[in-house]
Amino acid sequence: MDITVIGGTGEEGFGLTLRLAKAGEHVIIGSRSEEKGQTVAAKAREILGASAAVDGTTNEKAAEQGDVVFVTVPFAGQADIYRAIKDHVAEGKVVVDCTSPLATAVGGRAWQVVRPWHGSAVEQAKALVPKANFVAAFHTVSGEQLRALERPMDSDVFVCGKDPAAKAIVGGLIEEIPNLRWVDAGDLTMARIAETMTALLVSVNRTYKLHDAGFRVTGRDAWGKPGS
Amino acid sequence: MDITVIGGTGEEGFGLTLRLAKAGEHVIIGSRSEEKGQTVAAKAREILGASAAVDGTTNEKAAEQGDVVFVTVPFAGQADIYRAIKDHVAEGKVVVDCTSPLATAVGGRAWQVVRPWHGSAVEQAKALVPKANFVAAFHTVSGEQLRALERPMDSDVFVCGKDPAAKAIVGGLIEEIPNLRWVDAGDLTMARIAETMTALLVSVNRTYKLHDAGFRVTGRDAWGKPGS
Repeated sequence: MDITVIGGTGEEGFGLTLRLAKAGEHVIIGSRSEEKGQTVAAKAREILGASAAVDGTTNEKAAEQGDVVFVTVPFAGQADIYRAIKDHVAEGKVVVDCTSPLATAVGGRAWQVVRPWHGSAVEQAKALVPKANFVAAFHTVSGEQLRALERPMDSDVFVCGKDPAAKAIVGGLIEEIPNLRWVDAGDLTMARIAETMTALLVSVNRTYKLHDAGFRVTGRDAWGKPGS
Repeated sequence: MDITVIGGTGEEGFGLTLRLAKAGEHVIIGSRSEEKGQTVAAKAREILGASAAVDGTTNEKAAEQGDVVFVTVPFAGQADIYRAIKDHVAEGKVVVDCTSPLATAVGGRAWQVVRPWHGSAVEQAKALVPKANFVAAFHTVSGEQLRALERPMDSDVFVCGKDPAAKAIVGGLIEEIPNLRWVDAGDLTMARIAETMTALLVSVNRTYKLHDAGFRVTGRDAWGKPGS
């Protein structure tokens, strides 16, 4: 599969790029600048070895090329990114929004959030690009932990979306990352809660002087696709 | 210590009563009706054995008697309860609000929330009883699991509050319940997030046909009092 990571030059996106490419996926890093995209892709290949399939290009081209498009950008730039890629996203394409509406977007604190007009960051994205098949995920997964390839992940991913098939596709990618699990958290509106949980983790990290607190969901030994 | 559980006749409150009394605490169940409080206290003693110290009385008397007062009531009745006990809560008493503002309070769904004017249910409580020393906790701990005394707990408690000493007192009680841990989630306003996480668990329970999904926080082997 061709996986696009817009914001793949940032910590979370670069970590996701490394993990997915390490699992054997072809990852296309999207960046505002084609040159920066290519530079960061080269850095990923340097880390992973020459056999890794990582390319870099513009956000627009990356949005066209990926079968699944991850968007991992700060909330302050999220709407602009979606406006930029809007005409480059095919009808029904699975787009995974990873944005948390942290108050840093408006000069506030990272353990506080703002409330997007549409309810959540992903619903704002959906309003801007209605033709995409949106899934929200990865809000509570530490970018630092994703980047530390030698360390096993210790976190569950909350996956929200309307379309069970899209969630299963994204879930399949999550399952390729060792020790990462996914929990179907419900429809897209549940991102109103899942997105804010990032801020709770920031607060916990701050209190305990950590960088990579995460959540595991208890109650079942395995999660993943409901009914499986 | 004398521990009051207002709403101790409900599932969450009764579970908390059983667990704290089993740990050796004296628990006073508060109820609108003194008789109902006493009946439910007798039921707790029946479950725990005659040595258990559980009494039942009115909410008002229970609020006076407890050194720490837990309030475990549905959001729809929360404000009325605080108005009722307001004059019976001593200045500075530690009050642990466990309310989640689920949309069921207004006829909506349990996996959806309403947004209290003050930001969170506990901040609404604080506005009604400003003299109490509020802590918010237990939103994401299954009442069913609390009641099932033979089963070990498998959940972390998010504890929010302004006063570290009050959080440590509540944390000490949590640590008396085997296998339950507490995580300091920050100041009282962080309950704006922690309270809504109940709804996310309801969604997960609904999707996977469970009753007792919970959260564990990863990133440290032990949590509890920060800096310890």
